[in-house]
Amino acid sequence: MKKSSDGIGIMDKPPEPSPDELAKRSLNKIKNKIMVMSGKGGVGKSSVSVNLAIALAEKGFKVGLMDVDIHGPDIPRMLGLSGMLEASADRKLNPMHYSDNLSAVSIESLMVNKDEAVIWRGPVKHGAIRQFLSEVAWGNLDYLIIDSPPGTGDEPLTVAQLIKDARAVIVTTPQEVALADVRKSISFCKTVKMEILGLIENMSGYTCPHCGKSVDLFGSGGGERTALQSGLKLLGRIPFDPRVVQCGDAGVSYSRQYADSPVSKAFLEIVDQVAAALEKN
Amino acid sequence: MKKSSDGIGIMDKPPEPSPDELAKRSLNKIKNKIMVMSGKGGVGKSSVSVNLAIALAEKGFKVGLMDVDIHGPDIPRMLGLSGMLEASADRKLNPMHYSDNLSAVSIESLMVNKDEAVIWRGPVKHGAIRQFLSEVAWGNLDYLIIDSPPGTGDEPLTVAQLIKDARAVIVTTPQEVALADVRKSISFCKTVKMEILGLIENMSGYTCPHCGKSVDLFGSGGGERTALQSGLKLLGRIPFDPRVVQCGDAGVSYSRQYADSPVSKAFLEIVDQVAAALEKN
Repeated sequence: MKKSSDGIGIMDKPPEPSPDELAKRSLNKIKNKIMVMSGKGGVGKSSVSVNLAIALAEKGFKVGLMDVDIHGPDIPRMLGLSGMLEASADRKLNPMHYSDNLSAVSIESLMVNKDEAVIWRGPVKHGAIRQFLSEVAWGNLDYLIIDSPPGTGDEPLTVAQLIKDARAVIVTTPQEVALADVRKSISFCKTVKMEILGLIENMSGYTCPHCGKSVDLFGSGGGERTALQSGLKLLGRIPFDPRVVQCGDAGVSYSRQYADSPVSKAFLEIVDQVAAALEKN
Repeated sequence: MKKSSDGIGIMDKPPEPSPDELAKRSLNKIKNKIMVMSGKGGVGKSSVSVNLAIALAEKGFKVGLMDVDIHGPDIPRMLGLSGMLEASADRKLNPMHYSDNLSAVSIESLMVNKDEAVIWRGPVKHGAIRQFLSEVAWGNLDYLIIDSPPGTGDEPLTVAQLIKDARAVIVTTPQEVALADVRKSISFCKTVKMEILGLIENMSGYTCPHCGKSVDLFGSGGGERTALQSGLKLLGRIPFDPRVVQCGDAGVSYSRQYADSPVSKAFLEIVDQVAAALEKN
């Protein structure tokens, strides 16, 4: 029999749990899992994920933010986090810490060169996302917010397969082209049997900073219409505010900086709606 | 030996060419292939693809528009095309016709229920995109514009592998989070050895329709800065105009409807820049 360096037979060691088993153990310590998805890119999905996570954390919940957008990971920049993940005592990876209540993981925090493209086909991405669960020391969480890339491809499919009790929040902008893609997200959730908590209409109207008059950049009301048609709850409408973009670029918390803005108030209402929808279950 | 119904031995028929060979034959009849890509979603990549294709077609070129965004195909709606692809005499699929000079293909034109999600892992998508080339009767074209989904995943990788002489145009909005993802697109093109024709900065500034004053919705100048830093050509800057969104939703040609607008002029300039960049080669 082979001997390891400490003289104990390797065969005597208990077998390593499988990655699926390890992922399950991590998930057992997390109460609520919410995947933020969108049919179309650029509807502000990552902004919504970040601001939702921050708002929940500031209410006192323990929150994890998992960025499963492998090709366009925006979460670290938006949270102002730039380091790499480090190993913990039990050889797991420690998530990055934004605050006492909010930790985050992204593919970017595993890459030395942040400008390098991740050119992976689907099955490799599946493995990476599973590692985000199996090898990260998330600890006990009230919420895991999962920021998914747009569409209904490998990443959201992997989340649906690994996290059976994940629920979806769908973000859209009000124009018809975006809404057509939202209907695909709804169809996706039905197919994989993922409950949808509701819809968020983002970039819904804009107030000119010079004259104070309202402009519909991407149309308006489309999210509400789609929610009605598909029997979903409209969790809230978030107006467009260029300062959300600026804060995201600078890695600064918008809701802390502009606590009294209409956008921040919309987020707080959405958090209440989400919490209420979860309590019903 | 088995006999077919007309009495001729099946073995006498020449072997069916492989899908790769068929794709190659289609591509041999197409002069210029341009993949419109972006690091981030929602930067108006599909709008740019559509308007670029229309502008080229109106200049008298024969243009094909291939929508390889499998999970969020927007091209048919934007062109106002809703039918299904039909088989031609030689058992190939006829692309949809927008005008004499512009034809298009999208996964949506193969689906009966347009709201259904396509939940496919990478390798299946590869096969579908190859069929867009091998089984579609594109005919002789001056330009094939390829609208790719955001990021550096399966779809652009498949395009790079199947269309060796494809060149890239990268679309971005001016904010830093978008630009971080653009650098990933540049890294992707270097890795797969795809020439980059240049960068387009979209949604670059906005003029309030009420007071006429200028607002930077997504910041401004970031595309120019990134082009400079990475030694790429800036092909043009397109201002934000909500009517682009409205036209896209309605399937109406923006450049026909608003020929004198700053956006239409920006597109014409970009077409000239693209043509000039291609002539140099």
